[in-house]
Amino acid sequence: MGEAAPISSSAIRLDADALNAFMAEAFPHSAPGSRGAVVSAVPGHIQARMEPTELALRPGGLISGPTQMGFADMAAYALVLAHIGPVAMAVTSALNYQFLRPCRPGPLFADAHMLRLGKRLAVMDVRIWTDDPNKPVGQANVTYAIP
Amino acid sequence: MGEAAPISSSAIRLDADALNAFMAEAFPHSAPGSRGAVVSAVPGHIQARMEPTELALRPGGLISGPTQMGFADMAAYALVLAHIGPVAMAVTSALNYQFLRPCRPGPLFADAHMLRLGKRLAVMDVRIWTDDPNKPVGQANVTYAIP
Amino acid sequence: MGEAAPISSSAIRLDADALNAFMAEAFPHSAPGSRGAVVSAVPGHIQARMEPTELALRPGGLISGPTQMGFADMAAYALVLAHIGPVAMAVTSALNYQFLRPCRPGPLFADAHMLRLGKRLAVMDVRIWTDDPNKPVGQANVTYAIP
Amino acid sequence: MGEAAPISSSAIRLDADALNAFMAEAFPHSAPGSRGAVVSAVPGHIQARMEPTELALRPGGLISGPTQMGFADMAAYALVLAHIGPVAMAVTSALNYQFLRPCRPGPLFADAHMLRLGKRLAVMDVRIWTDDPNKPVGQANVTYAIP
Repeated sequence: MGEAAPISSSAIRLDADALNAFMAEAFPHSAPGSRGAVVSAVPGHIQARMEPTELALRPGGLISGPTQMGFADMAAYALVLAHIGPVAMAVTSALNYQFLRPCRPGPLFADAHMLRLGKRLAVMDVRIWTDDPNKPVGQANVTYAIP
Repeated sequence: MGEAAPISSSAIRLDADALNAFMAEAFPHSAPGSRGAVVSAVPGHIQARMEPTELALRPGGLISGPTQMGFADMAAYALVLAHIGPVAMAVTSALNYQFLRPCRPGPLFADAHMLRLGKRLAVMDVRIWTDDPNKPVGQANVTYAIP
Repeated sequence: MGEAAPISSSAIRLDADALNAFMAEAFPHSAPGSRGAVVSAVPGHIQARMEPTELALRPGGLISGPTQMGFADMAAYALVLAHIGPVAMAVTSALNYQFLRPCRPGPLFADAHMLRLGKRLAVMDVRIWTDDPNKPVGQANVTYAIP
Repeated sequence: MGEAAPISSSAIRLDADALNAFMAEAFPHSAPGSRGAVVSAVPGHIQARMEPTELALRPGGLISGPTQMGFADMAAYALVLAHIGPVAMAVTSALNYQFLRPCRPGPLFADAHMLRLGKRLAVMDVRIWTDDPNKPVGQANVTYAIP
């Protein structure tokens, strides 16, 4: 809200490799599998992929909600960092998650798009999907506060 | 979110004209301008347009939040009706609205996309914009309960 | 959510009368009835009341969703102003509304509570009810950006 | 939101011990610590407690967002089950989380209150806190679909 964004979203400051290296250092206690990895990063969009372990399952053999939400949060964090650079203390301000379809085990993908990158807040749309990007298992709206 | 959707989103039951006629009858007390009108309806997507009056302004001369949220709700309602037919009692179950940019006076557009159409719930993404669809003034996630 | 809040929520800067006077000036085009009025304001909480007109009805004779959301937004705005003073340009950053029960015609009440008042963002819980505060017709989570 | 709730929230069907036993069986892969435990369950309200491990930390030494959201989801699930009985397939339909304050390491508490228990949907308010329930670190609005 407020004034025009001073930070351009027309270029990225960290590419996929740099984002993965940064997050491996920022979250030393998490296994890469549980966190997922950025696959591509372009202005306004990143895609990430994760392979949930059996720890991520809920009754019915589906991928649990917190696993999906954590992955959406990671994708949003990566999208913010791709644009503002390696600022570990960017923090989630709000995350709204809609569960859309049963999430069957297997690789999970996240497409995160920037809706607005302001001076103080970044608002993003994140879609989580398994085999068909047009049938997302979940959709998130994520707001990050920029320090 | 339960079982697969039995209602196909591959065809629409009401086109733009039929939607506008239905809503004029359903909301006899509202002026068409304040409610907006459906411009196009295809499977999975409708676009609507409204011309806010001066009643819709807030301090600073911007279009008020409730005006934007009401328009997003109308667009979502139209998208549901386009797919399930003229069921007046479909009701909003939740509406999450993110205000992204100042909304300057002038025609407002809404693009509503179906994220999932189930037997009991329809979940939609709605973007509100003025002059540039890639710079939305707001984004809504709207859930309708289907009777 | 960043640093500790410098703005105390242990005292209010505008009472109910001052809030109503401020909003009457800020929204000269809206009738007081359509906007509602602040009934009480204490640290961390305001209560508001409105009498919806027939313009606020939706099919089924219920109070429309946008009317409820607009009232929740007004209550949140009043709660922010009560704490930070008459700053017209505080703007809604996000509003999440859950529709809980059919909203029958008659006076509407809003109880808005401050969840956190920070330097840049205020996050509030708002309950909308008609005859029983323990059976709200809707619940909102509203975030305001503070200029 | 449809018709009046047929399920009474004036009595609970599972108490704290029964809820913990049920969840230990439903989530055999999760350690109790990572999942938290129900401390008390009364009509309309449950309280839960968890002790985050170092796996739950994010940069800055704070409890990560996904840990908080997962705990809020668990508390909401327990509140639903307390009222409808041991129905493992109740699933989260939406979870909106507001991050309010930095979440420092140490025991986490969740207070989950029922906003509405309907036939098909349960909507709950969840507050997550550490040392002061009046200064929550996060607030969630959680919707469960009831099979």
